[in-house]
Amino acid sequence: MNRRSGPGRAAVPPAGPVPAALRAALEDDRLARAAWSRLAEPGDAAAAHLVAEVGAVTALEAVLAGRGPDRWRTRSREADPAGDLAAARAAGGRLVVPGDDEWPGRLEDLDRDAGGERPLGAPFCLWVRGPAHLREVTARSAALVGARAATAYGQHVTSELAAGLADRRFAVVSGGAFGIDAAAHRAALAVGGVSVAVLACGVDRSYPPGNAALLARLAERGALVSEVPPGSTPTRWRFLERNRLIAALTSGTVVVEAAWRSGALSTADRAERLLRPVGAVPGPVTSPASAGCHRLLRERGAVCVTSADEVAELLGELGREPAPVRSVERRAFDGLDRDELRVAECLPRRGGCDLERLVLDAGLELAVVQSVLGRLELSGIAVRVPGGWRSGVPG
Amino acid sequence: MNRRSGPGRAAVPPAGPVPAALRAALEDDRLARAAWSRLAEPGDAAAAHLVAEVGAVTALEAVLAGRGPDRWRTRSREADPAGDLAAARAAGGRLVVPGDDEWPGRLEDLDRDAGGERPLGAPFCLWVRGPAHLREVTARSAALVGARAATAYGQHVTSELAAGLADRRFAVVSGGAFGIDAAAHRAALAVGGVSVAVLACGVDRSYPPGNAALLARLAERGALVSEVPPGSTPTRWRFLERNRLIAALTSGTVVVEAAWRSGALSTADRAERLLRPVGAVPGPVTSPASAGCHRLLRERGAVCVTSADEVAELLGELGREPAPVRSVERRAFDGLDRDELRVAECLPRRGGCDLERLVLDAGLELAVVQSVLGRLELSGIAVRVPGGWRSGVPG
Repeated sequence: MNRRSGPGRAAVPPAGPVPAALRAALEDDRLARAAWSRLAEPGDAAAAHLVAEVGAVTALEAVLAGRGPDRWRTRSREADPAGDLAAARAAGGRLVVPGDDEWPGRLEDLDRDAGGERPLGAPFCLWVRGPAHLREVTARSAALVGARAATAYGQHVTSELAAGLADRRFAVVSGGAFGIDAAAHRAALAVGGVSVAVLACGVDRSYPPGNAALLARLAERGALVSEVPPGSTPTRWRFLERNRLIAALTSGTVVVEAAWRSGALSTADRAERLLRPVGAVPGPVTSPASAGCHRLLRERGAVCVTSADEVAELLGELGREPAPVRSVERRAFDGLDRDELRVAECLPRRGGCDLERLVLDAGLELAVVQSVLGRLELSGIAVRVPGGWRSGVPG
Repeated sequence: MNRRSGPGRAAVPPAGPVPAALRAALEDDRLARAAWSRLAEPGDAAAAHLVAEVGAVTALEAVLAGRGPDRWRTRSREADPAGDLAAARAAGGRLVVPGDDEWPGRLEDLDRDAGGERPLGAPFCLWVRGPAHLREVTARSAALVGARAATAYGQHVTSELAAGLADRRFAVVSGGAFGIDAAAHRAALAVGGVSVAVLACGVDRSYPPGNAALLARLAERGALVSEVPPGSTPTRWRFLERNRLIAALTSGTVVVEAAWRSGALSTADRAERLLRPVGAVPGPVTSPASAGCHRLLRERGAVCVTSADEVAELLGELGREPAPVRSVERRAFDGLDRDELRVAECLPRRGGCDLERLVLDAGLELAVVQSVLGRLELSGIAVRVPGGWRSGVPG
């Protein structure tokens, strides 16, 4: 049986009259890009390549003229870019396309060959909702991603990192999901920072519904971003392709908590292919929720990060933002050299010890011990007593 | 004032008649090495170099003839190698020197230049107590080291690693201290494995006293090892130098738990200089007891290890002992390619969906969707129903 002739045959519109809703798009790059965001699924590399090569308008013309694969023309009868724009505006959103001041030039990395593999494919456009200027805020930004099934540990560490990064003027970018994502957005907002959620559905929708209030706050104070037009539903592959946008929009990606198999690892993979820094937060080896992070450390060369300072060092201006040297408790023998340490340790806390005994015990030359004793006396570590020397360090 | 002429002046024995206790050592390499283990402190690089160059007997002759630094001759009046050997035997111990079958050839790495720095210095001899054949058991061995102030987490992970490594026929080597060290020794012994403690004091002593019972068991079933002669007390620099022996005796070093400043890091440093593998076990970033491990991962290129399998992969025969692939729960869509995944996700759980709708939703070519449906039907993921297709995966 010829399945194409069967009852379920899909109707590919014949090449011919241009659908009314697409006519304006043949004259306008913005509208044409909006149309493409409906004709092709995220990650449709052929579509991304065609648009990158000939431009959105010419590519659309070609499709409507019957050239290229059927799948785009099949969807053309449902495309209504002006309608999508109106829907976005109704939700307080806008369309951002290449050439706009707000377009993040970083996204062009998605059209470059990455590690010998084919390019991941830049989006045709971005649908954005919220006051943040997307290019400006993402110029200094950290993707904090991780498992939905986060532990209390993961949520705590995420909150610390996100708040610390926001304090250091990084925008905190994540996926708006439960768990690590939500903790990252919340903590950044809580300290007055900027946070951006990149969604797998339209920016007029709340997914997951349980995060509706959080997403609404992000739309008020940060930004919601998507490459699929208003009304679009999230699907598994849209989540996967969304991850490439999180990786491409940010200065680097940090995975806070992720199971051995976790979508967050795909974000790290995309970031790596884009040559962006990737950090992983370690956790207890007894916690399956950290197994993916340890996998990144073991197998993928991710950098171990344990504080906002260390993330800033990883993602900030190269060499300009080293994590501060950790302050540690001073100990009595800090700063002593090898010989000084040996003599200091031979000094008794009580009574006294003569030079001969010190030379024997330390196993050093007499002249060395004498010189060392002089220095230790100055710093109070050695004290002269009748019969020799004792320690000046409180025991 | 000329301090050398003061009342505390150390008496350097004049060159001249050889002390009675050292006469036999001038005829016997074993005795001469035993003597050197008392004349020079561990890590006295000049002594190690001299003995390596001219041999222990000739080096001893030179010292007694008044050549070389005073510090060795100063101690010569207290040296009694035959007495030390008798004391070792009385404690059930023995002396092991280069050339003995039991001498671990690995220790020669200590006399090689390491990373452009001067050699760490091989020991003159080893004092050993216990039934283990030192060369044979250390040929396949893991140093498990860490903080004395270990957490319950650190002790638990140490026990798991040590037991797992003993099961895989690795000797577990550590320093006999409280905390991680003790947990490693105990767990290895508990599963009938071999464990070796390298001490900073004589093998006839129990330090720390609280580990006396453990050390006694190691002397019965594994080995206690030291480069300092019987009766020697542990000092801070002997602990530090002891760490180079732990690093040099083993196939590699794993730090399980260590504070930002911890002696265990010095063992890792020595292992690195000897080009031995170094692993670090991650832990909560909120735990100061793991900060040193994370530092090793961040700054020193240590390998992140989370299980005995991963340690065995790191330390075992190269490429012969890969950690097994982690078994994970099978999921319904495992093994599907990208197009199959897309179509599978578009199938409704109830009712049916016609081919036209599937083509639109998946954004794929008709022919692709048809071919994919055929494959998904075979695996039960797609089910034909009146009016089209539905999902065969239980929701």
